[in-house]
Amino acid sequence: MTTTYDPVDARPRQRDHELRDRARRVIPGGMYGHQNATRLPAAYPQFMASGEGCRVRDVDGNEYIDFMCSYGPIVLGHRHPDVEAAARAQLDRGDCQNGPGEVIVELAERFVDVVDHADWALFAKNGTDATTTCVTVARSQTEKRKVLVAEGAYHGAAPWCTPAPAGVVPEDRAHLLHYRFNDLESVTKAVESADDDVAAIVVSPFKHDARHDQELVDPAFANGLRSICDDTGAALILDDVRCGFRLAHGGSWEPLGVAPDLSAWSKAIANGYPLAAVAGNDRFRAGAERIFVTGSFWFSAAAMAAGVATIDALGREDAVATMVRTGQRLRDGLAAQADAHGITINQTGPVQMPLMTFAGDESFELANIWGDVAARNGAYFHPWHNWFLSAAHTDADIDEALAATDLAFAAVATALAAR
Amino acid sequence: MTTTYDPVDARPRQRDHELRDRARRVIPGGMYGHQNATRLPAAYPQFMASGEGCRVRDVDGNEYIDFMCSYGPIVLGHRHPDVEAAARAQLDRGDCQNGPGEVIVELAERFVDVVDHADWALFAKNGTDATTTCVTVARSQTEKRKVLVAEGAYHGAAPWCTPAPAGVVPEDRAHLLHYRFNDLESVTKAVESADDDVAAIVVSPFKHDARHDQELVDPAFANGLRSICDDTGAALILDDVRCGFRLAHGGSWEPLGVAPDLSAWSKAIANGYPLAAVAGNDRFRAGAERIFVTGSFWFSAAAMAAGVATIDALGREDAVATMVRTGQRLRDGLAAQADAHGITINQTGPVQMPLMTFAGDESFELANIWGDVAARNGAYFHPWHNWFLSAAHTDADIDEALAATDLAFAAVATALAAR
Repeated sequence: MTTTYDPVDARPRQRDHELRDRARRVIPGGMYGHQNATRLPAAYPQFMASGEGCRVRDVDGNEYIDFMCSYGPIVLGHRHPDVEAAARAQLDRGDCQNGPGEVIVELAERFVDVVDHADWALFAKNGTDATTTCVTVARSQTEKRKVLVAEGAYHGAAPWCTPAPAGVVPEDRAHLLHYRFNDLESVTKAVESADDDVAAIVVSPFKHDARHDQELVDPAFANGLRSICDDTGAALILDDVRCGFRLAHGGSWEPLGVAPDLSAWSKAIANGYPLAAVAGNDRFRAGAERIFVTGSFWFSAAAMAAGVATIDALGREDAVATMVRTGQRLRDGLAAQADAHGITINQTGPVQMPLMTFAGDESFELANIWGDVAARNGAYFHPWHNWFLSAAHTDADIDEALAATDLAFAAVATALAAR
Repeated sequence: MTTTYDPVDARPRQRDHELRDRARRVIPGGMYGHQNATRLPAAYPQFMASGEGCRVRDVDGNEYIDFMCSYGPIVLGHRHPDVEAAARAQLDRGDCQNGPGEVIVELAERFVDVVDHADWALFAKNGTDATTTCVTVARSQTEKRKVLVAEGAYHGAAPWCTPAPAGVVPEDRAHLLHYRFNDLESVTKAVESADDDVAAIVVSPFKHDARHDQELVDPAFANGLRSICDDTGAALILDDVRCGFRLAHGGSWEPLGVAPDLSAWSKAIANGYPLAAVAGNDRFRAGAERIFVTGSFWFSAAAMAAGVATIDALGREDAVATMVRTGQRLRDGLAAQADAHGITINQTGPVQMPLMTFAGDESFELANIWGDVAARNGAYFHPWHNWFLSAAHTDADIDEALAATDLAFAAVATALAAR
């Protein structure tokens, strides 16, 4: 990364650096997956120590106002008291047992109650489990093979969907067809090319591909997908792993009135406890009954108790409305600061899951400077992945974070002036 | 299931039956996966309430001595104090965060210390994550495609390996080749058919296929696989998901002196907390660095803290030796009882992970009677899936369970006499 600003970081980093050295010896590349901090500017810690509400602390004791929320799971704030109490009460009885606890029934009933299209639910551990199971159910029910996905969309890290080609064989993606998000004609063309063999169309609630400006869904596009699925018998699969319970208290397309047949959930549904879910309608129930999917911890009760408590608290706290309010305050504040510094930015996506990019900043050089300085000043954003608000952020937290981002914009302005 | 014995069950079942009715409405088939109790005789509960040591309790308050240990995860006994303390101390700080806790480094170091062949480790949530990642790393490193698996072996529930065909397309298994466990010639033939394109040979520590008598590995077979992999450059992948830390304090083939290149772990490694691992040697490190695998909860710290505490407690308590002793006591007791009742049984597999079948009982009719009566009398075995001992079982627990199995054998003898 080229930096044209002063990269000196006055915050302590020693513990993080020691741990990185040890990790490089015993973990491939020092870290793997989406939490590999070598992809981020220097001020971002690799190792985190603790969190409370919207504040997190790294292993060197540096505190941040958290706008990543663990890349999505933390929707009520870190260590929400009701969720913690529910999970611990269940842990005190039993978690991973010879059968699920009765909480699995409660949780499935919650999904059926809260999510309009859901007649049933089943539970897993990873978002990838949920998206993969949706595809498997769709194929089981329709007895067709082709699956449409949007170009560049992220639906998990199994061989059929991981963004990296290493270790993947072409057959893993043999029956994938691609369309462009919000381009119904591209969907129609893909369907036509499939020769009446379409099992499913997979779609994200909005276009939230990393390293790209976000794009809200055109209601006509969502309705068009529903019609195409009705016409062809294909399953409409909403990948709500990243957005679920942050955009709406229910499925993310309920405000549009568009009901998927199957939806994939994870991240925020248990406020950080490991849980994923598939919800489906009755048309796909038999298909779901025929497949065999399972995992050693898919029946564990503590995460499910956390899930029930999370869904209830989200409703009780009117969490979506809170995140919309604070997210808008953040967006407005950033817009005013950019303007004051004479910098052109793009703010895209829903305000609860925003992304900010800089005009012409294809290699994210300015975004890296901005994120680095914000992190050094106690606000944890991300240079090229959408951010996440939580219901624990208050107006005062937003304003405090904006004090950090003002310094970050100043650094960007300096870098631009030096060009 | 045909029963020729009195199926009356005096134990309370009302809560379980109420929950099953509710579950049928909101969960496909009433339950999914390996914990679907409709596959088991009537005395087995679907829903569990709690566990402590080797004792578990269902939602109607019925207690059982547990010989399934949650299908493997519980290796130290339910709610082991050291593991619980470590997990809760971590939960009190933070679990799912913007980066892993420093405990990920500790845990990876433990794997490298304790598992002979391991130079590195990475962590996930499901056994299926671990086996799939091993295959992906092998393909990434070797740039070859074919993967050998044993006929009938279980390596997880993703489309490439799930035992059910529904929802799976042929391409998911396009590059799988099959061999017979302990039959080196069948391996050689499969390798020859692969035209120098073998990425990996996947093998279980012993043959533990459900519904079959278990079969220990022939050391010559294990050594032969190692030689074939050395000759061809393929990865030897040990699927230690089910056996890891129960057969040896280290990899399950360490007592044989056969080192895999990659090994897959889950189940027992965190005594019930959701965790999986891949361990690998330096030859496959670059391949592991190139792939992209991840999950929202793969970096969560509480399960990793549980993992470190579990590995330490397993060593400190000499858990494998304890399970060997109590497992042998169970095996001897069952043999004596069967003999006394004039019943021919097969006891197979390691004593820590035993299976008992009845001679000529292809449809598991006798096994179902036996398991049903044992469960009604407070001992939780399984009719056709291998059992699991834990380090919490004492000689007195084994003897108490044997009192239940004696009644179960009597019921089988009655059924046989009525034929």
